[in-house]
Amino acid sequence: MENVFPGLQKILESTRQGIHDFMGIITPVIENSKDDHERLYWHHIYEEEEHRLDRINILLPKIEAALKEPLDPNQGEFIRLLQDISLEKFGLHNFLEHLDLSLFSFKDTEHEEAIQGMRNMTDADYQEIKQMVQDLNDDYEGINLSAGTPTDEKEHVTGNLKIDKYQRNSNQKELESSARVPKRGLTVGSLKNI
Amino acid sequence: MENVFPGLQKILESTRQGIHDFMGIITPVIENSKDDHERLYWHHIYEEEEHRLDRINILLPKIEAALKEPLDPNQGEFIRLLQDISLEKFGLHNFLEHLDLSLFSFKDTEHEEAIQGMRNMTDADYQEIKQMVQDLNDDYEGINLSAGTPTDEKEHVTGNLKIDKYQRNSNQKELESSARVPKRGLTVGSLKNI
Repeated sequence: MENVFPGLQKILESTRQGIHDFMGIITPVIENSKDDHERLYWHHIYEEEEHRLDRINILLPKIEAALKEPLDPNQGEFIRLLQDISLEKFGLHNFLEHLDLSLFSFKDTEHEEAIQGMRNMTDADYQEIKQMVQDLNDDYEGINLSAGTPTDEKEHVTGNLKIDKYQRNSNQKELESSARVPKRGLTVGSLKNI
Repeated sequence: MENVFPGLQKILESTRQGIHDFMGIITPVIENSKDDHERLYWHHIYEEEEHRLDRINILLPKIEAALKEPLDPNQGEFIRLLQDISLEKFGLHNFLEHLDLSLFSFKDTEHEEAIQGMRNMTDADYQEIKQMVQDLNDDYEGINLSAGTPTDEKEHVTGNLKIDKYQRNSNQKELESSARVPKRGLTVGSLKNI
């Protein structure tokens, strides 16, 4: 378990910075929103990321403490730490989708490049934490980490509710390319100028 | 603590039904989406609610068990149960915003009334769980439940990032009326027909 902690700490620290940067980009969008729908849309995304930030700020010191003094795998504290990590795995998946949603709106703006950079970083972080949680699942059978699995990765969910690009370990360039070239003729294209 | 459990159990059971109903309404919207943006938007909301459902399905048996055999407030299990309840408080706030976002899109459709009903129920449930968590916070000082506080209720966050109607204990009719009569001239109005 402990050997995944340094990598995990690094991911959580870098995504924490990502949340700050992303909140900075969407703050003026909320403040200058043109109507109630637009305001609620961005407020809602902001609030979810701020919530994730609060959780990470509680989780990071626990990981740092466990790095100094290893936890007993038979204790409740250890199991809950694994469940918290699983929740942050879902949090990273969620952030990835927030960034992809934002790319539709911020395309051809000054923020597109920064958001695309966060998107690529988050995708790499997500693939890494997914593998970590998988390894922990294999090592500690019987611990219920199912609440960290997004719809995209559920075996019993049919493909009609999934998004292809989130289902597989994907090539970075392929992802980048598909995110950079959205299809034309979007019916929700008016979000683009938000 | 135990005296809030029956009410909490009732709220979690009814919101679980609400999640099922809401997922049923948006499933065909995902399946029949017209483009990648629309598909990602509804898929993302669906996935967050399914995640909440997974968590509730793990939490409910714990509450039922604690009702039969009270937990020791000095044990880690008790503290984690409080933190889980706090997380579901945030989950209800989030559901409220998902429903309000949906009301913009499903206005004047066959689903508006059902969503409005869920919205009113969720608002009442949220006010109730908020009070429960407040009482638990008062009773068990020193337990960090801060990760359950949405942006709308944070004291250090300025009003420019909040949504008025989520900030106060509100009159049901007032909320219903404001949700039923959205302002005209929405710039994201094309979402309305999703």
